[in-house]
Amino acid sequence: MQIGMMGLGRMGANMVRRLMRAGHECVVYDINPASVEALTSEGALGTASMEEFIGKLTKPRSVWLMLPAATTGKIADQVAELLEADDIIIDGGNSHYHDAVDQAAKLKAKGICFVDVGTSGGVWGLERGYCLMIGGPDEAVRHLDPIFATLAPGGDAAAPVPEEGLGTAPRGYLHCGPSGAGHFVKMVHNGIEYGVMAAYAEGMNILKAANSGKEHRDIDAETSPLQQPQYYQFDIDIAAVAEVWRHGSVIGSWLLDLTAGVLKNDPSLTQFGGRVSDSGEGRWTLKAAIDTGVPAPVLAASLFDRFSSQGESEFADKLISAMRYAFGGHVEKPKAGA
Amino acid sequence: MQIGMMGLGRMGANMVRRLMRAGHECVVYDINPASVEALTSEGALGTASMEEFIGKLTKPRSVWLMLPAATTGKIADQVAELLEADDIIIDGGNSHYHDAVDQAAKLKAKGICFVDVGTSGGVWGLERGYCLMIGGPDEAVRHLDPIFATLAPGGDAAAPVPEEGLGTAPRGYLHCGPSGAGHFVKMVHNGIEYGVMAAYAEGMNILKAANSGKEHRDIDAETSPLQQPQYYQFDIDIAAVAEVWRHGSVIGSWLLDLTAGVLKNDPSLTQFGGRVSDSGEGRWTLKAAIDTGVPAPVLAASLFDRFSSQGESEFADKLISAMRYAFGGHVEKPKAGA
Amino acid sequence: MQIGMMGLGRMGANMVRRLMRAGHECVVYDINPASVEALTSEGALGTASMEEFIGKLTKPRSVWLMLPAATTGKIADQVAELLEADDIIIDGGNSHYHDAVDQAAKLKAKGICFVDVGTSGGVWGLERGYCLMIGGPDEAVRHLDPIFATLAPGGDAAAPVPEEGLGTAPRGYLHCGPSGAGHFVKMVHNGIEYGVMAAYAEGMNILKAANSGKEHRDIDAETSPLQQPQYYQFDIDIAAVAEVWRHGSVIGSWLLDLTAGVLKNDPSLTQFGGRVSDSGEGRWTLKAAIDTGVPAPVLAASLFDRFSSQGESEFADKLISAMRYAFGGHVEKPKAGA
Amino acid sequence: MQIGMMGLGRMGANMVRRLMRAGHECVVYDINPASVEALTSEGALGTASMEEFIGKLTKPRSVWLMLPAATTGKIADQVAELLEADDIIIDGGNSHYHDAVDQAAKLKAKGICFVDVGTSGGVWGLERGYCLMIGGPDEAVRHLDPIFATLAPGGDAAAPVPEEGLGTAPRGYLHCGPSGAGHFVKMVHNGIEYGVMAAYAEGMNILKAANSGKEHRDIDAETSPLQQPQYYQFDIDIAAVAEVWRHGSVIGSWLLDLTAGVLKNDPSLTQFGGRVSDSGEGRWTLKAAIDTGVPAPVLAASLFDRFSSQGESEFADKLISAMRYAFGGHVEKPKAGA
Repeated sequence: MQIGMMGLGRMGANMVRRLMRAGHECVVYDINPASVEALTSEGALGTASMEEFIGKLTKPRSVWLMLPAATTGKIADQVAELLEADDIIIDGGNSHYHDAVDQAAKLKAKGICFVDVGTSGGVWGLERGYCLMIGGPDEAVRHLDPIFATLAPGGDAAAPVPEEGLGTAPRGYLHCGPSGAGHFVKMVHNGIEYGVMAAYAEGMNILKAANSGKEHRDIDAETSPLQQPQYYQFDIDIAAVAEVWRHGSVIGSWLLDLTAGVLKNDPSLTQFGGRVSDSGEGRWTLKAAIDTGVPAPVLAASLFDRFSSQGESEFADKLISAMRYAFGGHVEKPKAGA
Repeated sequence: MQIGMMGLGRMGANMVRRLMRAGHECVVYDINPASVEALTSEGALGTASMEEFIGKLTKPRSVWLMLPAATTGKIADQVAELLEADDIIIDGGNSHYHDAVDQAAKLKAKGICFVDVGTSGGVWGLERGYCLMIGGPDEAVRHLDPIFATLAPGGDAAAPVPEEGLGTAPRGYLHCGPSGAGHFVKMVHNGIEYGVMAAYAEGMNILKAANSGKEHRDIDAETSPLQQPQYYQFDIDIAAVAEVWRHGSVIGSWLLDLTAGVLKNDPSLTQFGGRVSDSGEGRWTLKAAIDTGVPAPVLAASLFDRFSSQGESEFADKLISAMRYAFGGHVEKPKAGA
Repeated sequence: MQIGMMGLGRMGANMVRRLMRAGHECVVYDINPASVEALTSEGALGTASMEEFIGKLTKPRSVWLMLPAATTGKIADQVAELLEADDIIIDGGNSHYHDAVDQAAKLKAKGICFVDVGTSGGVWGLERGYCLMIGGPDEAVRHLDPIFATLAPGGDAAAPVPEEGLGTAPRGYLHCGPSGAGHFVKMVHNGIEYGVMAAYAEGMNILKAANSGKEHRDIDAETSPLQQPQYYQFDIDIAAVAEVWRHGSVIGSWLLDLTAGVLKNDPSLTQFGGRVSDSGEGRWTLKAAIDTGVPAPVLAASLFDRFSSQGESEFADKLISAMRYAFGGHVEKPKAGA
Repeated sequence: MQIGMMGLGRMGANMVRRLMRAGHECVVYDINPASVEALTSEGALGTASMEEFIGKLTKPRSVWLMLPAATTGKIADQVAELLEADDIIIDGGNSHYHDAVDQAAKLKAKGICFVDVGTSGGVWGLERGYCLMIGGPDEAVRHLDPIFATLAPGGDAAAPVPEEGLGTAPRGYLHCGPSGAGHFVKMVHNGIEYGVMAAYAEGMNILKAANSGKEHRDIDAETSPLQQPQYYQFDIDIAAVAEVWRHGSVIGSWLLDLTAGVLKNDPSLTQFGGRVSDSGEGRWTLKAAIDTGVPAPVLAASLFDRFSSQGESEFADKLISAMRYAFGGHVEKPKAGA
């Protein structure tokens, strides 16, 4: 079937490719003409303006937006101006699910359907397929089923389970509820992702420290003594451990597969500085936990570690050093490397 | 080759079965004669006492202990009394790695080798194979290679990676270092497991609360108002979400596969009460993090949540209620169900 | 000076008393006539309706609202209907500071000033005075200075510091910024309060467990062994410890004073069940931390512990038990007391 | 009475001064002769060797050690060589309470008493008095009562409470139990201190960020948008807030008094770098919580924040960045100031 894709970054462009491979007709647009051109050369129908883009679509139009969260709302409003009743806007980006709830309510008055699709799969989705978490009105979601079925991995990506009662979930896409439900589920998905990543990272960091009994340690009142250095004499090959855990252990996962690959190539991770970005969904997950009174200490710890990695603990840490100086005369030791 | 297995519980018995399928000769012993009998009928050489068990083994003997952590030390001492130089004791249980370091030092004087093997795979290991994390002297570990190779999954359990430099890791077993290193790596493995499990559990709990805007909420000074109930109107099918995430999403994993299976059969988890046991390795991981000065907030949060599930927050919570009453006259609301 | 007080609960009534003692004229109103009557008998000018209440106030009117957060907004709107330009509404309750920002903007169009006053001091404020954190336009705050100066403790509540540059802070009240700033600072104050209370409570809980080496402990694979019971043989008198810490220790505080009093009377806290309420400000503090990217792991942990005490971990804990059963056949132990 | 003090650093020297002011006879020794000389000039009986030091003491001797935790054990052994039955060794440093338990058992064979005294009060103890948490045999503790009574603040440091049943606690010293109990209680005291300090520090950090709506924020997929900048427009005077909270608020404390003083002099804390040391007791508290199965998420978070401030998150953070790059092609942003 025909679909319009707007936003041809890493994610959008690959989704177009996956759709075209299955024979779907893709009308594409991006503010960067080079991005349009690249896909046109691969068979997409490129357009040079939002108006031309909408004009090429046949009714009822399906416009898939694959844009940064910070701009999606404004662009969706502009697109909506050009659409008519029964047309569909799909937001496949990492937008806040509140926006989907609000957009859907606003567009309903015009008869336009709003479908929010949480999309996981990253740069690997072109080959592996994308896991899709979908929110929106029933008929719009049904109408788009051929698109979803193509983008999703299909039934082979994980060991099969009996399918009764789970609908399309075993094929990698799921209609989760009304508008907003897709982004809500994707939000929680990313919140979990933060926690899982941090669990691996903390564990690996402990493995790395397994030889700390071999290191010299200052003996002064500002340094906690290592009480039993004989138990910290191991030089662990972390890359090999990540690899072995992939084979039969309880903590096997796709993130572990990636971790093993990363550590094999660069065990010291020299190409990274350790500033971990967060792009919103972890924050929103925590806010949802707070609103609903659900404890989420693990997810919170993983989010706050990212904030700390961005330097945002600094003032708090200075204040603690200042208190220690004030009551005990404790003088700060210099930062490593400072 | 020949191996002696002592401790024929869920794990030990299945390991014997996997070894016998590959043609290894298994001498077995357990204090429970029925466990011995069961395996004898499947082809193992059963014995009725520790002495008979040791007596049936040919030198150099290999004695694999698969016992609860709380008893391993004592039994290992008794076994060692019956062994001679060049014999090998293997501890495949969830013992503390300190014990392995100490045992190895003690047995070295007698010329007996101590090999510690962290074993992951649970009740699925018989078919899937066990992921093995091994510590001990080089030659003993080399001698046991045929056993390890059989118990481990082999090369098919995860997508292949180039094998250079990773040794046997891609086949699911790894010699991690001297005695204690195997249990150290297994300990951290389980610490990670706690964190990963908690991340999924917290996320699922948030999904479950996605309809809390539909619920009645008390309006009083002891209840935080839900500010935007319109955003919490989703009835999420959690089992279907767990299933869809298995297909192409970033958080796909074996634990998620199991979670999806569990939720499909019993979405309300009515057969569980929510008291989560912890059997030691999570605690030891945290202590190692503390000793080595490595921050592990996610792993700590997941461990402490287990403690809370065991009722161990109660006094602290009472004290907070008491403080609130003391400064503000706040009267406790009754516990749900009380 | 004259002030109107609406909402005569624990906080509002005592504030009226403290104001009258200092000679201020208090016009009072509450939907509960008995509350009005009680204060009338002590010298306040009681009123029977919102209209009568406003009618008794001389212009420019100052109306102090001391109401539950969930109703303040609606009542403020109704009051504003009856007011005129240059009148002042003061919100002294635990409202969300967003509401103060929004209300102030809305009322500005009518020329009405909105002043938000975070108030700490609890049931002790009548005698000790209330710590006031104030947001609002300069002249309205200046106009109310006699009221603030009376409600606040004055200069004796803590050891004196040189006052230059800190304005009225050493007397216990502070103009923190424009409308909303008062409630913002109060919100963070309460967030800190959660963390401090939890720190004491966790520590006391550890003291209580100092004799756990004397207890019987199951020996099975679901129970972590206590490795060195000889170090947990202390029967600590927790009430006496709380008392001694009040005298010269670094952790002396008013909350500790209250804790010591509580534990002296009821060391086992038998009158409390351990369900800790949260009334909003801890949640809002965390959301502000998340919005601004500031790590707040301690405040988050203390909030989430309250959620857990309310039973909200249950589904997550069940899911973890279910996973443990699925991969390892681990059977849940029953909850204590179940 | 007579007491021998060994270790004349910040703490030891001031304790000698406080004891001498009350008329006690102090024999002093330190490996640094200048420290001995300073106190000799103030009236102490200085000595030049451990042997001379012990020789000047009358039987039964009382030797108070005030040394870094890392050296206390070795020195205590040397001192014990020179002592006789009924002599007393007092360890007033921040030693691990395990050492006190072990030392006491060892010295008991020789008839020497071991008394462990946790000491809080910091550099202010000389004037305010020290809060003393005492472990050891009854008669030795009774014998030292005049010393403890002098070092402690006495009855005026906090508002009085009825004293029945609390023994000496209202005067600032407490016999907590057998040897080890004093250091155990002090350990938990410091664990709480970590949590309380972190609660203040996190809250202050949020106040500092209250103007973040005024800042420019990148718009890209690696930056979480600030959704409602209108609510983050406050420039809070943090020093003034710390000051006002000291007067009548629920979170008043001695640590807050110090914090207010610190912020008044240097609101930006420019003289600190933010590397927070930890000297052991926070670690030990967490280990005790883990051993006894008591949840301590707040204390853990405060400890791990210190580890992070020491740079120990770096590898974990790099690994998370590496995973994000691996699955999503996310490129790290540079660290601020890098």
